[in-house]
Amino acid sequence: MPESCCCSAGSVDITGCRMSLYPMSGNFVDIILGSVAKVDTCKVWSSTDHLSTLYRGRQSHVLDCAKALFVHAWKKDTHMTGEFTFSRGCPGDTEADSFLETDDTPRNAAAAAFGDFYTYAKISFYAFGVADYMEHIRSVVEFAEKYGLKPKASHYVTMLEGSANALFAYFDETLAYAQKHLPHYVLEATLSVNSPSVVKK
Amino acid sequence: MPESCCCSAGSVDITGCRMSLYPMSGNFVDIILGSVAKVDTCKVWSSTDHLSTLYRGRQSHVLDCAKALFVHAWKKDTHMTGEFTFSRGCPGDTEADSFLETDDTPRNAAAAAFGDFYTYAKISFYAFGVADYMEHIRSVVEFAEKYGLKPKASHYVTMLEGSANALFAYFDETLAYAQKHLPHYVLEATLSVNSPSVVKK
Repeated sequence: MPESCCCSAGSVDITGCRMSLYPMSGNFVDIILGSVAKVDTCKVWSSTDHLSTLYRGRQSHVLDCAKALFVHAWKKDTHMTGEFTFSRGCPGDTEADSFLETDDTPRNAAAAAFGDFYTYAKISFYAFGVADYMEHIRSVVEFAEKYGLKPKASHYVTMLEGSANALFAYFDETLAYAQKHLPHYVLEATLSVNSPSVVKK
Repeated sequence: MPESCCCSAGSVDITGCRMSLYPMSGNFVDIILGSVAKVDTCKVWSSTDHLSTLYRGRQSHVLDCAKALFVHAWKKDTHMTGEFTFSRGCPGDTEADSFLETDDTPRNAAAAAFGDFYTYAKISFYAFGVADYMEHIRSVVEFAEKYGLKPKASHYVTMLEGSANALFAYFDETLAYAQKHLPHYVLEATLSVNSPSVVKK
């Protein structure tokens, strides 16, 4: 296990996502566990604790599982948020708890058929150990325009909106950019669906 | 407004907290808005949008308001999480949207009387623009021992547990340490109460 906040010496070739679902409903247990059971995790290492579900492995499969977990938990008229921490490259990461030896074919591609629902999001991109981290943040925000996600600056976050499918496609490009340019990075994202604050507008 | 993820040129002497409450109950609107109304915000700048509530100003008052918002939302037998992003020093922060000219007397100290409930948490501490960021993470994790919060390493986070009062006292020391040693930092914390996953243990 890692030794601290993010982190023991080992491979840094593992993308991870720690994510939590928060359905604002008395039925939250069934929604969360029902969705966890629906995700095909045969191409990642996964674990669920009392706070989150973790996926670790290749970026493509980690994103595939994270998207499926969120999409399968969506219920009409149920307000839900999903909190995602994507990370790679922590100097203290461990080689354990991962699964990289696999092909590129996603196991949960069918989830996209259910991922057209409108989603609001706040994201923060963090790059470590580099002096020009603000430049990388700007690059990541610019990608969001390409995906039609209407990026809007706010304190500590960038606000986005669009389909869940478009948001995860954007996350994929952002993480690929980060992998190419940065030794250690974190993408924090919170997605929100069916909020009465927005529906009332 | 800031120009990107966290960030336009201006003062960096402002502590901010963007926080969101997620009560896993059909009554979530009343719980959230009821708690927002109970917080005395006369010594901070505050704003609530469809995703979060923001407090900006002196560290002591920002923490005072954040703690009060979480504590007032706690309901017996209702599972709730609270997501907190504490930040200071972003090179792109703005001098606007803040309120620093005030004394040190907290306005919500009475909330502590209700803050002894048991809370589980995951935290991540991020420091920017410095090469020795891992050392600062270790320091922050060590503080948690002093507050009896049983820090346990996990992927991408440190797990903590203890009373809400103890957790916020720990956040106060962590942010004071960060202010002294670092130009720009973020503390991400998610607090969880009344989870059936834990109660069943």
